[in-house]
Amino acid sequence: MITLASDFGSPYPAAMRGVVCSRTDARIEDIAHDFPRQDVRAAAFWLREVVPYFPPATHCVVVDPGVGTDRGAVVVEAGGHRLVAPDNGVVVPTARRLADGEKFAVWDLAYDDEALASSTFHGRDLFAPAAATVHDVEAVEDLERCSPTDEWVDLTFPEPDLGEAGATGEVLVVDDFGNAVTNVPGRVLNGRDAVTVDDQRVPVRDAYAERPAGDRLVTVGSHGNVELAVNQGRGDDAFGVEVGDAVDLAW
Amino acid sequence: MITLASDFGSPYPAAMRGVVCSRTDARIEDIAHDFPRQDVRAAAFWLREVVPYFPPATHCVVVDPGVGTDRGAVVVEAGGHRLVAPDNGVVVPTARRLADGEKFAVWDLAYDDEALASSTFHGRDLFAPAAATVHDVEAVEDLERCSPTDEWVDLTFPEPDLGEAGATGEVLVVDDFGNAVTNVPGRVLNGRDAVTVDDQRVPVRDAYAERPAGDRLVTVGSHGNVELAVNQGRGDDAFGVEVGDAVDLAW
Amino acid sequence: MITLASDFGSPYPAAMRGVVCSRTDARIEDIAHDFPRQDVRAAAFWLREVVPYFPPATHCVVVDPGVGTDRGAVVVEAGGHRLVAPDNGVVVPTARRLADGEKFAVWDLAYDDEALASSTFHGRDLFAPAAATVHDVEAVEDLERCSPTDEWVDLTFPEPDLGEAGATGEVLVVDDFGNAVTNVPGRVLNGRDAVTVDDQRVPVRDAYAERPAGDRLVTVGSHGNVELAVNQGRGDDAFGVEVGDAVDLAW
Repeated sequence: MITLASDFGSPYPAAMRGVVCSRTDARIEDIAHDFPRQDVRAAAFWLREVVPYFPPATHCVVVDPGVGTDRGAVVVEAGGHRLVAPDNGVVVPTARRLADGEKFAVWDLAYDDEALASSTFHGRDLFAPAAATVHDVEAVEDLERCSPTDEWVDLTFPEPDLGEAGATGEVLVVDDFGNAVTNVPGRVLNGRDAVTVDDQRVPVRDAYAERPAGDRLVTVGSHGNVELAVNQGRGDDAFGVEVGDAVDLAW
Repeated sequence: MITLASDFGSPYPAAMRGVVCSRTDARIEDIAHDFPRQDVRAAAFWLREVVPYFPPATHCVVVDPGVGTDRGAVVVEAGGHRLVAPDNGVVVPTARRLADGEKFAVWDLAYDDEALASSTFHGRDLFAPAAATVHDVEAVEDLERCSPTDEWVDLTFPEPDLGEAGATGEVLVVDDFGNAVTNVPGRVLNGRDAVTVDDQRVPVRDAYAERPAGDRLVTVGSHGNVELAVNQGRGDDAFGVEVGDAVDLAW
Repeated sequence: MITLASDFGSPYPAAMRGVVCSRTDARIEDIAHDFPRQDVRAAAFWLREVVPYFPPATHCVVVDPGVGTDRGAVVVEAGGHRLVAPDNGVVVPTARRLADGEKFAVWDLAYDDEALASSTFHGRDLFAPAAATVHDVEAVEDLERCSPTDEWVDLTFPEPDLGEAGATGEVLVVDDFGNAVTNVPGRVLNGRDAVTVDDQRVPVRDAYAERPAGDRLVTVGSHGNVELAVNQGRGDDAFGVEVGDAVDLAW
């Protein structure tokens, strides 16, 4: 199985799909093609939350603001999965999650920029064909163009500041429902009925519907992090936050 | 075959897809993941219009404003199809349509809320795994966690008021083209060349393009209901209606 | 393999998918369902850029402002691919590209408007079932309802005006990134470091990221045409252009 993920919107992913179908009979499943545009960190977050639910597969990921520059391309193997992506860290948190504390392997994927059909669409011209090849090969090290490397671009999420009296974190992503997902681990809410967010007490609840429609709550999202939410409404609007904003929680 | 339908937008459905792929080799097809957010009735309408075109399959439907509360989960069997969904009525009109006047079977799908990985994403943690199981089992009654029930949440669409001089109905949904789909059956337009909508005569036509671009018409949509439309424009804007609004038609 | 492409948004394409699944075991891949609404030329452009990357397949295309009128339906065979679409030119540029200078074959696909379930959704009632049939048949000429024809609606893109001192073209489409794709062939930029667009010098670059974030550039897109772009921004906004606008480039 090959999965495809990008920030391409439509219809560019169809060209990637065509390229993959032309080269392998592998089943294709989409992860998403509407990751926030050119936001490597947001894509890295969502991939880490979604990819581990798949059975071992080759995941072709293209969120690539550096397309056409000298940024490299990588193949990563972790937990039985293979990831093919630009070397900008976008698949690193996923690899760490899949490796589950073990080491994961990274190869530099060599390519000749001049030989590609375009300098603006490596999803179609570099990553999709590479993913088909990586999927079909027995072992990644059998590919001549793949060289083991320790020189890859890392990506980590900011650490929250956890204290006795509260926690300070950051909004990592906002989902389509408007839930503002922070980097604060959900366990800090254990046993609490409410927390103070920006000087206002807000109920802590397990489910959105435990609050009246339109009312704010703080909850633990499906990713295990603290989430600022509104039942049947948008948490980002109600809390006045967007990606990258600091979030102060006081007990 | 397993189909997936939700109001999750992106990328949450990919986690459901991963869960299904991890548990069964069944082919997966998407129905839609952009149903109007938490609008159970709208999803129920669209599912009724779309699901019957599929060959017998297991349909996993998650439009679930009550996620994490004590609302139940159901498995429904009708016309050779199986439906797995929250017990909020979202699949009931589809089941009725599939059953075509016959009875359909409903099982309560038992689950342990405490044992699920999240209280906010039952699509991933409850319904997707259940759909894989329901798909693969010979008979639903073979599943220990499924108990036949007559106590399920019903959902019906409002009945229009059909008279000699006209009809009064309601806008059930607005599609992506802006066509306002009512609950008035299309047969009331038989033989009519125009009807009065809100004191204005509007032509009745079989095809959008039978009117100049930008002009209003009343037509019978692909679902068989009366639709307020504009050729190459948005009917909801031109008629000033939205979901839930009353629509008065006079002959 | 059957691919589906339309301007239907959601959830109408699911009905087409169901119809296809009911009639054939062919694998289904989506090309796109969010082509600019009822914009036959834009869809024709994108299809020409995407379809050739697929292995030989049957492509069901429905961008169909004339649905329900007396416009015809066609089956086209070119380069081992089959295309099923309304006779409005939407698949003609694709057929020309696939045929690569050779002739391509066109059949009129007969249908009985009165016998269809709707006059507004031929994607579901005419084209999807026809695509399943066309996919499964050995030779298109074996289908009784297909008659060879030379009377089909053509569609060509406007020719740019290429001169010694510059080029005048037109914006054909704007992609989801905001890149304004013109009809001017990319080769005119060979060896140039900048061009004048509307009296302003704009750098010519191979990659978006060769400019600071937010800065304008002129580049050759993945389709081989001149593109007005902004690194990590929208070219259409920055250059003040939309589909159909003239673009003057001076060397």
